[in-house]
Amino acid sequence: MAPNKTITLASGHEMPLVGFGLWKVPADQAADTVYNAVTAGYRLFDGAYDYQNEKEAGQGIQRAIKDGLVKREDVFVTTKLWNNYHAKEHAIPMMKAQNEAWGLGYIDLFLIHFPVALEYIDPEKVRYPVWWMEDKSVRTAKVSIRETWECMEAIVDSGIAKSIGVSNFQAQSLYDIQSYLKHPISALQIEHHPYLVQPELIKMAQKHNIAVTAYSSFGPQSYVELENARAQDTKVLFEAEVVKGIAETHNVTPAQILLRWATQRNIAVIPKSNNPERMAQNLSVLEFDLVSNEIEMISGLNQGLRFNDPAFYLPENPLYIFA
Amino acid sequence: MAPNKTITLASGHEMPLVGFGLWKVPADQAADTVYNAVTAGYRLFDGAYDYQNEKEAGQGIQRAIKDGLVKREDVFVTTKLWNNYHAKEHAIPMMKAQNEAWGLGYIDLFLIHFPVALEYIDPEKVRYPVWWMEDKSVRTAKVSIRETWECMEAIVDSGIAKSIGVSNFQAQSLYDIQSYLKHPISALQIEHHPYLVQPELIKMAQKHNIAVTAYSSFGPQSYVELENARAQDTKVLFEAEVVKGIAETHNVTPAQILLRWATQRNIAVIPKSNNPERMAQNLSVLEFDLVSNEIEMISGLNQGLRFNDPAFYLPENPLYIFA
Repeated sequence: MAPNKTITLASGHEMPLVGFGLWKVPADQAADTVYNAVTAGYRLFDGAYDYQNEKEAGQGIQRAIKDGLVKREDVFVTTKLWNNYHAKEHAIPMMKAQNEAWGLGYIDLFLIHFPVALEYIDPEKVRYPVWWMEDKSVRTAKVSIRETWECMEAIVDSGIAKSIGVSNFQAQSLYDIQSYLKHPISALQIEHHPYLVQPELIKMAQKHNIAVTAYSSFGPQSYVELENARAQDTKVLFEAEVVKGIAETHNVTPAQILLRWATQRNIAVIPKSNNPERMAQNLSVLEFDLVSNEIEMISGLNQGLRFNDPAFYLPENPLYIFA
Repeated sequence: MAPNKTITLASGHEMPLVGFGLWKVPADQAADTVYNAVTAGYRLFDGAYDYQNEKEAGQGIQRAIKDGLVKREDVFVTTKLWNNYHAKEHAIPMMKAQNEAWGLGYIDLFLIHFPVALEYIDPEKVRYPVWWMEDKSVRTAKVSIRETWECMEAIVDSGIAKSIGVSNFQAQSLYDIQSYLKHPISALQIEHHPYLVQPELIKMAQKHNIAVTAYSSFGPQSYVELENARAQDTKVLFEAEVVKGIAETHNVTPAQILLRWATQRNIAVIPKSNNPERMAQNLSVLEFDLVSNEIEMISGLNQGLRFNDPAFYLPENPLYIFA
């Protein structure tokens, strides 16, 4: 099978199958990191308001354009609306401000970051709100997903976003949006790795022409430093015998195997690396193919283990999004 | 702990903690079965349009009232709106017709059976539609959960239902209803047994004052005869060593242990039995208490194994509700 380099979204636009994830890229390094990633060949950048580096990431892309490395239309920028700004009166100005921060004229793909609205917090007071308030309470807001989805559609109509989608939504929530949408759900971004395969959700999405992007392709890796006990107790995927064995067969790294396991099933990936060599390795994962038995062996590691769960962050007042 | 016999719903009404489930009770036996269950002491009957026995179950209750066994207000009737009637123009007349079929003046608790709308089918043509159409396709309809929820609220306002709720909904869907509801979600009915514990969903619901009712308390038991391969391959819970051992300790049946495991955590149960002795046994499960270690041991059987999943019924065209 020849590797596909892009996925055609329901909106009609093309999305690269391999991108660069901006989660946990420090703002003061983001411009250089992104510039280097463009140089390395990356054309998709996956950001979010919550990642606190939109402006800087945008500066990196702007510099790459200025230096003639790419044109704007060669680059695909994804970003996400955070939970505290779901209400119409906050969502629209916030998404406009995010687009201004990137400074690239438009956003290629705008996602609702999580399927839950939290109480509004003025960004002038708290620039980047977390899941809980100062007093450690978690306060949901009475804002429906429909209200927020209609804001996403409005920013398509106003030219700010080319395509829209959601992140961390389950099938029930997707069917509901489908009942009232005017613009298609172009993409679904979910946690997806061999410990959390979610085959039914992926089948449902792909059947409905919703492109799936995997985050946390390396499993617990990204969560260990966040003092996530479940991640700390779980064997890193790079060390899993199945993954190591298949990596040796193909003479590539375990990371490349994990990324190819996703991309070969038409699931986009957005790994992050600051290391130039690994940056290049992660991008080159369309250059070999796994056999179907290898894909199944890797999927066989599935344990339904989710690491990015807001229920973990505040055990005394948990927010159950995936229950 | 003295066993609670009812749960106070968010609507203010009381719901018995142990009821009688009408799924798979043949219509021609339903009146007698229900009458016998009232005689045995049952006060909650859990029905649904889909169970095809509302009229007959209602006749059993009417006879019990006529014979002076109970008054209407002593009995609690739950029923459910089927997937093909979610649109406003179908939901309201259908719920009125269901209420007429029961013939008891009102319904105590009306639930949305599943969080997905299917294409309308005229009941005059197909009285009881299943998940798929005649040509085996599964056709969802563009009806939002909100539209259907607002119909549930309308039937409360018109006096047809005392309380309303949902069945088979996940947490994301509950948060969304909470953003626009006018009447509270009084109850959530879900598959719940030691092989599918769903502790986070239960914590979420109970924290939000949504009463949880467990269906399929005996796990695979009800699904074996439906040729559900997963159920056929799974050890029946009555034979699980942990359950058997605790049953011996308390000198009760494994079924009673499974029902007490739920009710002691304030989760209502709705077992079905045609056998008078087991009918009485199932009802008497509030008369002994498990120690917390026993509850934990039983919960330790959790495998995330779901048996009532529409994705199983039509593998070539599956509907993923729980993905």
